[in-house]
Amino acid sequence: MDVAEFRRRGKEMVDYVADYLENIEQRPVYPDVEPGYLRSMIPAEPPLEAELYEDVLRDVERVIMPGITHWHSPYFYAYFPAASSFPAMLADMLCEAIGCIGFSWAASPACTELETVMLDWLGKMLQLPEDFIAGTHGQGGGVIQGTASEATLVALLAARCKAVRLVQASDPKISEADIISKLVAYTSDQSHSSVERAGLIGGVKMKKVPTDQHYAIKGDVLRNMLEEDKAAGLIPFYLCSTLGTTPSCAFDPIAELGPICNAEKIWMHIDAAYAGSAFICPEFRPLLNGIEFADSFNFNPHKWLLINFDCSTMWVKKRSDLIGAFKMDPLYLTHENQESGLVTDYRHWQIPLGRRFRSLKMWFVFRMYGLTGLQAHIRKQVGLAKEFESLVRADKRFEICAEVIMGLVCFRLKGSNKLNEVLLKNINHTRRIHLVPCQLSGRFVLRFAVCARTTESRHIQEAWQLITQLTYELLQEQPL
Amino acid sequence: MDVAEFRRRGKEMVDYVADYLENIEQRPVYPDVEPGYLRSMIPAEPPLEAELYEDVLRDVERVIMPGITHWHSPYFYAYFPAASSFPAMLADMLCEAIGCIGFSWAASPACTELETVMLDWLGKMLQLPEDFIAGTHGQGGGVIQGTASEATLVALLAARCKAVRLVQASDPKISEADIISKLVAYTSDQSHSSVERAGLIGGVKMKKVPTDQHYAIKGDVLRNMLEEDKAAGLIPFYLCSTLGTTPSCAFDPIAELGPICNAEKIWMHIDAAYAGSAFICPEFRPLLNGIEFADSFNFNPHKWLLINFDCSTMWVKKRSDLIGAFKMDPLYLTHENQESGLVTDYRHWQIPLGRRFRSLKMWFVFRMYGLTGLQAHIRKQVGLAKEFESLVRADKRFEICAEVIMGLVCFRLKGSNKLNEVLLKNINHTRRIHLVPCQLSGRFVLRFAVCARTTESRHIQEAWQLITQLTYELLQEQPL
Repeated sequence: MDVAEFRRRGKEMVDYVADYLENIEQRPVYPDVEPGYLRSMIPAEPPLEAELYEDVLRDVERVIMPGITHWHSPYFYAYFPAASSFPAMLADMLCEAIGCIGFSWAASPACTELETVMLDWLGKMLQLPEDFIAGTHGQGGGVIQGTASEATLVALLAARCKAVRLVQASDPKISEADIISKLVAYTSDQSHSSVERAGLIGGVKMKKVPTDQHYAIKGDVLRNMLEEDKAAGLIPFYLCSTLGTTPSCAFDPIAELGPICNAEKIWMHIDAAYAGSAFICPEFRPLLNGIEFADSFNFNPHKWLLINFDCSTMWVKKRSDLIGAFKMDPLYLTHENQESGLVTDYRHWQIPLGRRFRSLKMWFVFRMYGLTGLQAHIRKQVGLAKEFESLVRADKRFEICAEVIMGLVCFRLKGSNKLNEVLLKNINHTRRIHLVPCQLSGRFVLRFAVCARTTESRHIQEAWQLITQLTYELLQEQPL
Repeated sequence: MDVAEFRRRGKEMVDYVADYLENIEQRPVYPDVEPGYLRSMIPAEPPLEAELYEDVLRDVERVIMPGITHWHSPYFYAYFPAASSFPAMLADMLCEAIGCIGFSWAASPACTELETVMLDWLGKMLQLPEDFIAGTHGQGGGVIQGTASEATLVALLAARCKAVRLVQASDPKISEADIISKLVAYTSDQSHSSVERAGLIGGVKMKKVPTDQHYAIKGDVLRNMLEEDKAAGLIPFYLCSTLGTTPSCAFDPIAELGPICNAEKIWMHIDAAYAGSAFICPEFRPLLNGIEFADSFNFNPHKWLLINFDCSTMWVKKRSDLIGAFKMDPLYLTHENQESGLVTDYRHWQIPLGRRFRSLKMWFVFRMYGLTGLQAHIRKQVGLAKEFESLVRADKRFEICAEVIMGLVCFRLKGSNKLNEVLLKNINHTRRIHLVPCQLSGRFVLRFAVCARTTESRHIQEAWQLITQLTYELLQEQPL
């Protein structure tokens, strides 16, 4: 395909994309395919000779679309939102064309520098403490990671490295392996599975702190665990606290946990993967109070801030903590300017070496929406969740299972777990809306997350109508 | 921006991208900016209100382009290639629109299933042993990782987990920490810095095997190290061998190393990040002989197989080895079909949880080029490297520093390292071509990698002309 054909095909693809998104409501939100459906629809062997583009595009509708879960349908209420906006898509077209691999400043200075400034912009929107802003002289700053899982892991590895150095400074004879075997990381029993996984990868113990009735860590519970573990000769070194848990969007009281961590020299990482975007609104910002005690903070603009995946933003107070844990400088990656204080080589901040020019998406979205437009998006989706909550509360057969603070409503039929499992199955089998469950205090709960940018009140009403209709049918067969 | 405006802006962006790539030769390949250049060119604060799209686009030329290292310029000869093709860009537009996060089969069945089949297609193009092909009943299969660094790490972590279980099976009382402190991973002194980093992250010793005059590991050298380490009570568990090293594109003799690893129950991972693409050509496939002894194999189609970053393909013989090391199944990620043997939940195969629909790029590229077209691309670039090699060899002032097998030529002026450092600096300061150095046997060497898809013979000739002209000037001031 030459450049002339790309001009034509690219414009056709823009229309295809626009048509897809404009008419997405007409597609069943959840696919009706069985595992293994695709293999038999395409050849078993790769083509020897080039095929026609028309045939490829025809196969998108024939082979791909029947197997898609349409995350951007206004009938999609599963997991958490995956951000999507037109400015982000335009920026990613540009990113693809530039196609630089920004592992060092020299590999494309704009790629690194725009990222640093965009993380400062976003940090200011969140009113992060000055420590987290790079500026021209700061010790901290931000980086785009691929996912929150990676941010959690990177923070844990940096904390591990720092803890080993700290112990060895007072006892130079103790081996690294010996120290690592004594290290303990903490997180709540509500935190994301990727936190436990970070502990596995880093080869350290990870203890789950039991949560209270709000699904949050209480300071005294944490303090007691730390005392017990220290008395047993262990070394607490890392806490991953969550603002907006995956099951129920619960918030750990970081203003209470932070001082404990600081006093104990425990690295406090804050995972606000979903909820973080809301902190750009003054009314939600108090939930971030206590951030001043944290060593690192992360959330996913690719969830709720209209920036297409992947864009998981992470800030640290001391970038030397990250760099110190990972730095490697082979000759083929060194460059003239790297010793300048102004230069950031982001490869030292992350697990992968290569990186796309992802800050372009942030720049386009921030400028095309403005802070006001982004706040409006958050507020609209919280409003829709509140609307759904009201519908649930007005129906005595149902109960709300966790406080609705942002765009997630956890609810269930009063009755057995089995009953709720059947209800969810029936809902998803209609393929008209899509939800996933969670477990709260041993109970099977339905999660209704407002996801698509285009979800409106009428979709919420329709969803509730469907749920109550299926409930009516279910309760006729199987009363409460 | 509504969908109607996106149709218009998207088509303009297609033209911008086409214009950029069509006229890329006219831009200096390497930017003339100082560290920190960008911050002063844009506001310090994010905009409160939405801006005009025209202003954003204007700033792309004003702010971004002056700071870009143009990886797709035919005058770019640094690092290794970053793949770029029009079919891949079209597929990524579609990927952005679908915008699914494919962490599980249910999160978008097509996203998972196309990936499995595309990895089978590519595995067949490489003539991988049947063990690595998923098919419908295979124990192995492939996955798209973000980068080779992640593949190396994932393989090391799976190997670590397997080694711990193996030791504990014969000695249940030994602790995991104790085992990990005895584990030793191996790689050559030529392997990529990310391999050493994987050892750091995994908390295991990583020993560098010294290489021979071809910059490759010799079997008996490895065998001696293993014997010594075992005698010292250590546990060898992982070898990362390289096919196509970053400094000089050297090849470890995997057919010789494989049987040693198999006999010692050492996980053999093969990192062919750059060179792997060439194995689709029968004339290069013999370099992959010995793959049958490997546990895992990885290369980057996003380097040399015309699939835009990121697309790092990895195969394993036993997918249970990967899944066993990472599996976590919270309720919000479970789905009805996950116990079916046909279902793959790729989140268990990788570090991040979220993943883009990257196999679309593979599908578009494979079909729009065909195997024949892809082979032609590889052969053309190897031919251009050979052409450059001939030019160097014909000039008695220069020497070739490593056998030229693929698209990389390592060369230097006969003379001091200092002299070559100055030559490279002078070359890069012209901003007409861009190269990076490497170190081979203590010598400072210039790497000339054929990178851009659009590089032709005339660019090679021009590059050589520039190099010899600068050499002439340099030697006038500072004779050999």
